[in-house]
Formats: sequence, C-alpha cells, structure tokens
Amino acid sequence: MSRLYVIGIGPGSLDLLTPEAREALGAVTHVYGYGPYLSRIQPLGAFTCHASDNGDEVARARQALAAAENKGGVALISGGDAGVFGMASALFEAMETGPAAWRAVDVKIVPGVTAVLAAASRLGAPLGNDFVIMSLSDNLKPWAVIEKRLIAAAQGDFVIALYNARSRARPDQLANAFDCLRTILPPETEVAFAHHVTRPDERLELSTLADCEAQQADMATLVLIGARSTRRVARPDGKAWLYTPRSVSEA
Amino acid sequence: MSRLYVIGIGPGSLDLLTPEAREALGAVTHVYGYGPYLSRIQPLGAFTCHASDNGDEVARARQALAAAENKGGVALISGGDAGVFGMASALFEAMETGPAAWRAVDVKIVPGVTAVLAAASRLGAPLGNDFVIMSLSDNLKPWAVIEKRLIAAAQGDFVIALYNARSRARPDQLANAFDCLRTILPPETEVAFAHHVTRPDERLELSTLADCEAQQADMATLVLIGARSTRRVARPDGKAWLYTPRSVSEA
Repeated sequence: MSRLYVIGIGPGSLDLLTPEAREALGAVTHVYGYGPYLSRIQPLGAFTCHASDNGDEVARARQALAAAENKGGVALISGGDAGVFGMASALFEAMETGPAAWRAVDVKIVPGVTAVLAAASRLGAPLGNDFVIMSLSDNLKPWAVIEKRLIAAAQGDFVIALYNARSRARPDQLANAFDCLRTILPPETEVAFAHHVTRPDERLELSTLADCEAQQADMATLVLIGARSTRRVARPDGKAWLYTPRSVSEA
Repeated sequence: MSRLYVIGIGPGSLDLLTPEAREALGAVTHVYGYGPYLSRIQPLGAFTCHASDNGDEVARARQALAAAENKGGVALISGGDAGVFGMASALFEAMETGPAAWRAVDVKIVPGVTAVLAAASRLGAPLGNDFVIMSLSDNLKPWAVIEKRLIAAAQGDFVIALYNARSRARPDQLANAFDCLRTILPPETEVAFAHHVTRPDERLELSTLADCEAQQADMATLVLIGARSTRRVARPDGKAWLYTPRSVSEA
C-alpha cells in the first residue's frame, strides 16, 4: 500500500507528540525530514532515517512521494504542525508538478501542536481573541507582500504571531516589521519573545512595541505582537501573564 | 500546592490528546469544564467532574480558581487548545478581576491541537501560507469589529479560518460574512466546510465563494476561506486536496 504519512511532531518536547503521531511513526519503515527533527523521534521506531538540510522542502517531498509509491510505509516529518509552514504544502506542490501516479498515493496528514500554541501557553493567553499567523521569511514571497499583510493585520487589530522572524541570512526583516507596525499600532502595544519553547533553554521576554528590538529574536524565537486590548496581569513573583480579553468593545 | 492546570484536550479523538495533557489529568482531583468535554476525558483519571453549560466561561474559571486556591490539584479543560477561543483567556479575566490571592495560583497551561489544525490536515494543506483565525461570534464583540477584521483579512490575502461560524442562536452571521467577503475576494475563491473533524461523523465539503451557503455549516463546522492562491489538486478517486502554495509571486 502506497501510504505516506505527513507528521507534525510538535514544538520540541515529546510530551507534546500526539498518540496518533507516535502510532504512525511505529508503522513506517522510512522517515524523511530535517536532521534535528529526525534525531528527536528516532527512539520511537525502527525506521530508516533520511535526513536532509533545512532547505529544499519540495525536493524532500519528491523523495518521500517516490519512496511511498514504490514501497509505502513512508513518513515525512515537520516540527510543530505539518500544515503550518511545514511539509504539507511542499508535499502537494511536489504532487501537483510530479508524475500522475503520485496523486494516487494514500496521504495521511497527522496534525500537531504548532509553535505558537506552545508559546502562548507559556505566556498566558495572548491568542485569546482573533489572530494572524504569518511567516516573516521572504524566501518565498516578496517583502512587499509581507508588509501589506502586516499592515492589514494591524489595521484589523489582530494579535500577530510571527514565524521565521529572524535568521542569520535574514537579520534585518524583523526590525523592518517592527518599524512597519509602529506606523499603525500604539507604542504601548505588548510584544513577546518566546525562545526555544518546551526545550531546556526555554526563555520568555515581554516588551512593548516602543522598546522591543529585533536582536531579541533568533531562529528559534516566536514573536507575538498584541492587539490593542492585549495586557498584563501582574503576579506576586514579579512576573506577569500576558492575555488578550475575549471581549472587544468598539470597532 | 495551589496548582491549576488549563488543558486543551484536542479536537475530538483522544488520539490527539497530548501525553502532557494525559499526565496532568492523571494528577488532579477536580476537573471543571463543559459537560461533553468532561465525558470525553472522564475515563482518563480518578477526578471529580464539575460540569457546566456552554456559556459563562468566566464564572467557571472563578470556580476553578477558588478550588485551586483551597485545595490545588484542579484542572479546567477546553476542547482543542485552551488558548484559542478556549478557557485560558477567561481564566486571566477571572484572575484580573478576582481576589489578589488568585494571582498567586500556580497556573500551568497545557497546549493542544486546535480545531483548525485537524480540519486542515483532512483537507490537505490549506494553511500553507499566512492565515487568520477568528471567531464569528458576536456574543463578545460587536459585528462591526468582525466585519472590519474580515475586510482586513481579505485585503491582506490571508487564508481565513472561522471558529464559531454558526449556531442556532446566530443563524445569519455566516451568510453576512460570506457577503462581506464577496465584496473583496473573487468568486472562484476556495471555501471548505469541515464538519465534526476526528469524530465518527466527520465530513468535508469543498465549495467556492460564489457557490457556498451558510446552511452548509452548523455548530461543529470549521469554515475555511482560501487566499487567492489556494487551489485544488485532483485525485484519481474524484476527490481533491486543497492547498495553499508556500510561494506568493506578487503584492
């Protein structure tokens, strides 16, 4: 049977890997993915790992489709959820542009906990109202599109979660994004940086749009920009919870 | 110890309940939640269930905070992820407006798979690019805010996922939302209805903005509106995958 699983392995800790994902990993013989993600799940099955660099996701999807067509029992893995800036979209791009036989592959996508949900759980309830999830990488879309979307999100008073906020190859985009948002949102807008969530070096920082700096983020940082109503609840230990109320009073 | 867990139990099937959530449910003695959600997780622990109606979430959060302050070992549960239109925001609202001692309660939020991730996994990869998650309920925000956000989302060319799209008490809002979006988005825009995802009566329907009707949704339907680039990949069985490519070519 030419089954291909596309599995979201969650944000880091295996405590957030779903039973469905674990069962799928136990049922396959070949797993394709980015090396560090494969290392995480290697103890969970008896499969052969096919590691590739973080990079050409469509090429990786083609390898997995070809393998699934030939022998079945194949999985393609993503960090977080495979549908959110993960391998699922790359898979259908490979399917759409590949041999007709690939469209008959029995694809089963297993959802996972995407990074923003884990980050939000540590911060409090910043996603308590309507929100936007967007990638700040301009590898696959022009900066003009990113800027248009940031402006639309700010005008709609959405909470904004930024994936791929900053990397060595793209050091300046987050600063540009903050500058873009500063033209619309008030300086006291809450901003949060959630680093390496669910991993041993997890770290949270709260700031505001006036004070935040792009240097506070690296490749494994989820950046959240609050809506106008997003605020803090002070705790006796000097820290604070960040939350967005469910009610909105005016347009 | 006055610990209070806020647990996302996933979209339906316990195959998507995380190990962390299962462990937390094994550690508590009292669980507060909406009755049908409690029924789902009752077999997983030896706790006393405190069921309440779907309704006053802040009152339920107050009960849980008071119980946690007095005896600890308490959990508050949500379907999906507690941070996405779930109990987490209601909890901080109760904490903000309640006795000072509640701010010292040791709150631990356990993330979960929210409905849109499960729905997207069944449809293909509709969230393959930037997207908006919003609730269509005007119980807590005026319709003018909802309309402003729909327009901003459409102008930003985001994929749009609608929670609380339709209920018996709010039969007309989804039709109004479709009409609002039709003023901006082309008629061929993809629309998907994902009913009761991961439950035995799961059902998917693909449509377009020109053809879709609000009556296709009920209380347990996740409605997805595609971006301009969202499209179908036909399968040999006559069905189709829905996906949004990772690349965007123009602003």
